[in-house]
Amino acid sequence: MARSQTFLGDTALTEALNEAGLAISVTEIRQIARGVAAAPPAVDPSAWHCLVAEDLPVALAAELSALVTDDRASSVSGLDGKPAPAHRLEALRGEMVERGIQGFLVPLSDAHQSESPPRNAQRLAWLTGFAGSAGIAVVLADQAAIFVDGRYTLQVRDQVDLGSFLACHLIEEPPADWIAANAPKGARIGYDPWLHTVDGLTRLRAGCDRVGAELVPVEPNPLDSVWHDQPAEPISPVEVHGSDYAGRNSADKRRDVARVLADSGAAAAVLTAPDSIAWLLNIRGGDLPNTPVTLCFAIAAADGGVALFVDPRKLPPKTVAHLGKDVTVRPIGEFGAALADWGAGKKLVQVSANVAPSWVIDRLEAAGAGIMRTPDPCALPKACKNATELAGTRAAHIRDGAALCRFLAWLAAEAPKGVVDELGAVDKLYACRAGGELFRGLSFETISGAGPNGAIVHYHSSPATNRTLEAGTLYLVDSGAQYLDGTTDVTRTVAVGEPSQEMCDHFTRVLKGHIAIATASFPAGTSGGQLDTLARQALWQAGLDFDHGTGHGVGSYLCVHEGPQRIAKRFADAPLHPGMILSNEPGYYKTGAYGIRIENLEIVRATPPGDGDERPMLGFEALTLAPIDLALVDTSIMTIQEIDWLNAYHARIREIIGPLVDAQTVSWLYQATRPVSMSGTG
Amino acid sequence: MARSQTFLGDTALTEALNEAGLAISVTEIRQIARGVAAAPPAVDPSAWHCLVAEDLPVALAAELSALVTDDRASSVSGLDGKPAPAHRLEALRGEMVERGIQGFLVPLSDAHQSESPPRNAQRLAWLTGFAGSAGIAVVLADQAAIFVDGRYTLQVRDQVDLGSFLACHLIEEPPADWIAANAPKGARIGYDPWLHTVDGLTRLRAGCDRVGAELVPVEPNPLDSVWHDQPAEPISPVEVHGSDYAGRNSADKRRDVARVLADSGAAAAVLTAPDSIAWLLNIRGGDLPNTPVTLCFAIAAADGGVALFVDPRKLPPKTVAHLGKDVTVRPIGEFGAALADWGAGKKLVQVSANVAPSWVIDRLEAAGAGIMRTPDPCALPKACKNATELAGTRAAHIRDGAALCRFLAWLAAEAPKGVVDELGAVDKLYACRAGGELFRGLSFETISGAGPNGAIVHYHSSPATNRTLEAGTLYLVDSGAQYLDGTTDVTRTVAVGEPSQEMCDHFTRVLKGHIAIATASFPAGTSGGQLDTLARQALWQAGLDFDHGTGHGVGSYLCVHEGPQRIAKRFADAPLHPGMILSNEPGYYKTGAYGIRIENLEIVRATPPGDGDERPMLGFEALTLAPIDLALVDTSIMTIQEIDWLNAYHARIREIIGPLVDAQTVSWLYQATRPVSMSGTG
Repeated sequence: MARSQTFLGDTALTEALNEAGLAISVTEIRQIARGVAAAPPAVDPSAWHCLVAEDLPVALAAELSALVTDDRASSVSGLDGKPAPAHRLEALRGEMVERGIQGFLVPLSDAHQSESPPRNAQRLAWLTGFAGSAGIAVVLADQAAIFVDGRYTLQVRDQVDLGSFLACHLIEEPPADWIAANAPKGARIGYDPWLHTVDGLTRLRAGCDRVGAELVPVEPNPLDSVWHDQPAEPISPVEVHGSDYAGRNSADKRRDVARVLADSGAAAAVLTAPDSIAWLLNIRGGDLPNTPVTLCFAIAAADGGVALFVDPRKLPPKTVAHLGKDVTVRPIGEFGAALADWGAGKKLVQVSANVAPSWVIDRLEAAGAGIMRTPDPCALPKACKNATELAGTRAAHIRDGAALCRFLAWLAAEAPKGVVDELGAVDKLYACRAGGELFRGLSFETISGAGPNGAIVHYHSSPATNRTLEAGTLYLVDSGAQYLDGTTDVTRTVAVGEPSQEMCDHFTRVLKGHIAIATASFPAGTSGGQLDTLARQALWQAGLDFDHGTGHGVGSYLCVHEGPQRIAKRFADAPLHPGMILSNEPGYYKTGAYGIRIENLEIVRATPPGDGDERPMLGFEALTLAPIDLALVDTSIMTIQEIDWLNAYHARIREIIGPLVDAQTVSWLYQATRPVSMSGTG
Repeated sequence: MARSQTFLGDTALTEALNEAGLAISVTEIRQIARGVAAAPPAVDPSAWHCLVAEDLPVALAAELSALVTDDRASSVSGLDGKPAPAHRLEALRGEMVERGIQGFLVPLSDAHQSESPPRNAQRLAWLTGFAGSAGIAVVLADQAAIFVDGRYTLQVRDQVDLGSFLACHLIEEPPADWIAANAPKGARIGYDPWLHTVDGLTRLRAGCDRVGAELVPVEPNPLDSVWHDQPAEPISPVEVHGSDYAGRNSADKRRDVARVLADSGAAAAVLTAPDSIAWLLNIRGGDLPNTPVTLCFAIAAADGGVALFVDPRKLPPKTVAHLGKDVTVRPIGEFGAALADWGAGKKLVQVSANVAPSWVIDRLEAAGAGIMRTPDPCALPKACKNATELAGTRAAHIRDGAALCRFLAWLAAEAPKGVVDELGAVDKLYACRAGGELFRGLSFETISGAGPNGAIVHYHSSPATNRTLEAGTLYLVDSGAQYLDGTTDVTRTVAVGEPSQEMCDHFTRVLKGHIAIATASFPAGTSGGQLDTLARQALWQAGLDFDHGTGHGVGSYLCVHEGPQRIAKRFADAPLHPGMILSNEPGYYKTGAYGIRIENLEIVRATPPGDGDERPMLGFEALTLAPIDLALVDTSIMTIQEIDWLNAYHARIREIIGPLVDAQTVSWLYQATRPVSMSGTG
């Protein structure tokens, strides 16, 4: 395919490399640069140069950077959120005929079930044009359908050619039902076994069974065969996450996990979640947007050894040295053979059936391994942060709180003038954070919703939807950052101008729910599912509710969404343990009018035993430090205890953040954190 | 085996039958009488005579009654709560050798997973002597173990010969682990496929797998081959439960269930839960203690027809007429052939995998049926009571409340004299209820716990443990009754003499939890699991908790424990629907000192929409009408709203029960339901 010009030609680049004494070829460099372009932009755009050499002449460094800029521009093609041209679907159908299948599944996923898969895994977007964050297409010989959830029922109509794809609701008309109603009897429906979990396939297979169709694994992915300008696998340098942040060295973590494996009777565990591997090996990467992981697989053995399957070009010498002799680095192409080796020994191997690609289980079973379906053995120890990680995240939250207070003070001054819009606010908030110590980028795309846009739970502002913050409306901003010492996630809702009585009532009910979680005391062994109702009770009393979970787990300079900890109506059975970090984010949404959400991160911690306590009790410590808009608080429907909590929380923010911010912010901060009383806002 | 004398000899009895013009033989009558003796005593001991003829001469009726008394006396042998003689275990091991198995599982269950299996299914008690309500033994060639839960760890030592059986904790050292540690490699461990569910076997099989042992179905049950005086299958007359109580006729219910089956694509559903069949066919029986069901199986077809597999001797002509032509009555011996017929047609059949015996699924699979593992299709419609059933249960609760008030008034007068003991209180409470209209017996064995015995959650008073109610202690009484129009279940805790401040504090926290459930408002779709925490919050704030569920479903003149509705920390995911009945019974237990529980039954009902309500909301209506002991209420830790609830609840009791009781009870009632205020008990 065509490439635009770089500063130097290949010959001149070869010369520059020779001059610098580097043995690497231009072809190799071009391949790396293609991978770097397929990864999201790094905070330090030249960080990847270490994959070529430790120290580069300035001119050569500039040349390398240009290569990436170049590749990034070209790799955008075909993923622009507009309906995809119909010839792509036709090309896929041609390939289906070649492969002898009458159907093919195109999920939005990669082999790691990543929340935001890399560009080369954006097959659904390439095929259909759909740019949302969840969905699946089912392509049959003469018809096709795309399935999206309630968030995207409008968006899918703009972004997908409805002449080619029937748009269906993922939950109400699930793919399995559509297959059962539309697939011809005896049809072979193909799927890429790297992209589906065994649990996911079980549901789809039930649909096939009903119509006498068959679900068959197909490799390599037929869509990849016709996606000619498919981006490369992302490449980013794998960095050492030192013990000063991680708090425990990798050898100790590996020993702990090995002991758990040995106790369970398993010989090894297959790890396919990049954040689990990042935690276990104390490494971080930049392959995915907002999440500092490197895409890889690993097999952790009960003897403490780990085989890491990763593109070796991503490992600078420093990282190789850090991994040491007990971690064997192998190219991903050898993963299948390694699985087969464990199977050949008839060993018992742990696999997480709701995370691992079915490809992994197929290989193990075919080779004769015993499969133990267990949760990822790194998930729980990763979720329970150690003292170093907790100290780090407290520090990160103070810096993040100062940044947020600067933003909120600016907003309080500027928004009333009618000059702030959603995208401008996103930029300002980024600028407030970007200068900060240890800042490594955002932890997710900022949600910046003015007025009715605030009622769209997963709203992403675009030039087409961008609204100015207007008097008499609410503004909801949900954002977070990655710091080397911690991950943040915070939502505040602020009144622009005078809020209505209804806004104040509903905001205060959300706040009462937030406080109920923040102040909860519960026995060890309690799950987040058991706490969820506390966040909703004040809303329920007024016949209101919100349609998302109350809280998700948060990593330590890792995923902003992690398990097993969770506070929600369903699927939140994991007991909470000291050291876990969870969001506490009840909300209320009035479609077409406004949205409210109040989100802090909280640490689970053991409560010092009180007089008469009979059980070990747990509670929360609020990490987030940003004022809650008092203009929206109606103290007349709060209890004394709730008002005391609010005043104490604000006093703590004033004390900690005050010394860290400029005079203008301090002045705002004192007003924003003034004590309130039952009779009014004092 | 030896039989004691009846009034007449067989010859005289034959003559009496001939005189009455009855064709039935003495042998047949003796068999029926054996079955009647194996069933629990009925409220009307001669009710079963209708199985012989509608009208019997008085002398013959007396003779029939004597036959049963006689049989009941003889069938007690071997189930007396003392350690079983060792020769039973030896006999079983001999039979195991005959059958070629090296192990055998002896659960405490019948083919219906009944909560209280009938006498002939008390195999665990016969083999070991253990008389608790849950447990399982695993017998190997040279060792054996019995597994009981925390309630029974003391009791098992008294009732089981620990030289023959190792006593293990059911949860902490589960049978699967013990098998894995003790069964010889290659051992064949037998089980009776009628007594285990597929889900239950899965766990046990995992234990066998770990040691290379095999779990094999064995029929007939080897223990039955050596239990020579095993009681008969229980026999009791199957009665029609008329539409004036059931609210909906059986044909309509069958049509509803058939529609659900047809919609699911299933051709039929196998029903193995006697209460589901009782509900579907509007029949009741007396085969089990406290639960008015007949032991039977059924297959409900998608065309509306039902095959009922039941001992036909249990059906009086009136019931046969009621069942009508669309219900085919077949002996239980034909159940297997009927399952095979559905399989032979390659039909899709619904089975509840956590209730149905594995025998059922084995038969269906062997015959080629497709198995749909679904909840019992009767469970949900049975749980959602119709208007007639709700009116009935309200009426039953008024009569039950009057009985309970008479008891509590008596207790208030007598207990301070030191003349009341646990067993005396049980008898008095029974007497207060027994005369009542539509009374059909207790719904479970009354729990009557004085002082420290109240802290034993599933306590059953016996002459050995019987305590006198003493001043300065608490008395906990948990009881319920079956009425033709409803099932009751209520717990009250009363102070005898002056309670301590701690007792009052903890009682009030339990009460706050009870009120939080009683007053909860929640959106349609909410499960009991989501409400459970409301019942515990006030205890958690003091570092306290209780180790049982907050609420269970209750049937309509059926099981006092039914699903799917439930309020608990775990396994309570079923959404609550209007018409469901649940208990609301938080508690607190101080081992060795006292127990507290406050239990009302509640109806789930739709809340009339309020101003600004955005969602359909549900709440509860309290059914139970009995005062909560104000001597134990500390209003200083209650909110105004909680005190208002208590006063309104007591006013309602006074108003409804007052006109129904004697002057002495009324006088107590007015004192017991006096309004209280924040500053004291007014």
